[in-house]
Amino acid sequence: MERLNIIKIGGNVIDDEKHLNSFLNDFSKIPGLKILVHGGGKSVNNFSNEIGVIPQMIDGRRITNADTLKYTIMFYAGLINKKIVAVLQTNACNAIGLSGADAGIILSKKRKVEEIDFGFVGDININDINSTTLSSFLEMGLTPIICPITYSKVDGLLNTNADTIASRLAISMSSNYQVKLTYCFEKPGVLIDTDKNESVVEMLSERKFMELQSKGDIHSGMIPKLESIFAALHHGVDQIKLCHFSEVLQHKHTGSGTKFVINE
Amino acid sequence: MERLNIIKIGGNVIDDEKHLNSFLNDFSKIPGLKILVHGGGKSVNNFSNEIGVIPQMIDGRRITNADTLKYTIMFYAGLINKKIVAVLQTNACNAIGLSGADAGIILSKKRKVEEIDFGFVGDININDINSTTLSSFLEMGLTPIICPITYSKVDGLLNTNADTIASRLAISMSSNYQVKLTYCFEKPGVLIDTDKNESVVEMLSERKFMELQSKGDIHSGMIPKLESIFAALHHGVDQIKLCHFSEVLQHKHTGSGTKFVINE
Repeated sequence: MERLNIIKIGGNVIDDEKHLNSFLNDFSKIPGLKILVHGGGKSVNNFSNEIGVIPQMIDGRRITNADTLKYTIMFYAGLINKKIVAVLQTNACNAIGLSGADAGIILSKKRKVEEIDFGFVGDININDINSTTLSSFLEMGLTPIICPITYSKVDGLLNTNADTIASRLAISMSSNYQVKLTYCFEKPGVLIDTDKNESVVEMLSERKFMELQSKGDIHSGMIPKLESIFAALHHGVDQIKLCHFSEVLQHKHTGSGTKFVINE
Repeated sequence: MERLNIIKIGGNVIDDEKHLNSFLNDFSKIPGLKILVHGGGKSVNNFSNEIGVIPQMIDGRRITNADTLKYTIMFYAGLINKKIVAVLQTNACNAIGLSGADAGIILSKKRKVEEIDFGFVGDININDINSTTLSSFLEMGLTPIICPITYSKVDGLLNTNADTIASRLAISMSSNYQVKLTYCFEKPGVLIDTDKNESVVEMLSERKFMELQSKGDIHSGMIPKLESIFAALHHGVDQIKLCHFSEVLQHKHTGSGTKFVINE
């Protein structure tokens, strides 16, 4: 099977134009088939603050109300996605920006209201990814640039976690391609001590992950990220790596970043 | 040659959600291959007013400065484009939203500074339309929804007139398809008296257009629109019509709206 690189680029890199351009320059040099999934960073929060709209939070978690959804679409599917596409086109990478609604590539279901009403948030399953259309784009020589806006036939456009999109997309595309999934962000990998870059875990098995989690060495936002990584490994994704955004071009089996295995 | 419908939907319809949804419902029922080009309406102006940014005008013409470009991308390529795509997907029309940068479908050149510096405005030629890629999308069963943002390798994303995009696109696609170009807006066609809907011109030849123009019966914004329509007729576009947005589904050779011919 042909190799497909799926790269997720995290929000903090999106917020820094210099870092983003440097990352995109490297990304455009990755040979062969590739897809980029991007987050939105602090753009919507910063913008809401600027225009005096206070983001709605419950228990420290952001609620996507109608206004937030509107700004999310404007930034994620509009400004950020098109800026990335334009930089890549200038770097001779034939990028095409897509939300989940475009060509129906990612359907979702609005999250049910249980303890918290998260608002216009969409959850996705592996079957919600239209891998046939995405494969056609890749065969045309295009590089899909996917923003974290999905689409429900019942509820319209919805906000979806970009890490989850990357993981589900990698699983779905694994039926046609040998998929390498790389999460790029501003840290060198999974850290035992979040303040010490040298505490990076080079190889993380599922058993070790559970051990570190029970000791409290891995916590908060990193847990759902790693859970979706191990789910992807279990569902046929060939290789998964979490690394600093400057390492996206490295194709060494050893080297910086965290690699994941089911068993040691 | 296969028939291709290219429809331009004007700004005033975009601003009215009820009218827009009604138009999109009709648009989704047009059989065969089709492309939609949309304007942006007053969204950017209204939004600028809301957040207290005063649009820069010279001699009554809007200047696209860096802030205006940012908002234009957010609204045209983001909110408006994705809302249209979502409504069409719900109507079982497999829409894909595109700016000129996406898959490099519309390149442009930044307008040279002469008497006025229009700012980040892109002008396009017929050769700047990537008809090969657009044809591939049509063959995949997709309906491209094009927003008036184009792309220059030198200057990045640029703001471009949507009427001009529709006309150039129709000319470019005429080498592969029998193109019918329809401009939909809030009036029933070309009017001799702009206040009287019954003064609609049913058939307009180039000679009659020049005559009406010299008498002052056709003036201001309608002149460049009609000039680009006659240019398209001269360059191989099969049929061109200007009509009320509620008439988009009508395929009669007689009936409401203005049709265009080179000679009577």
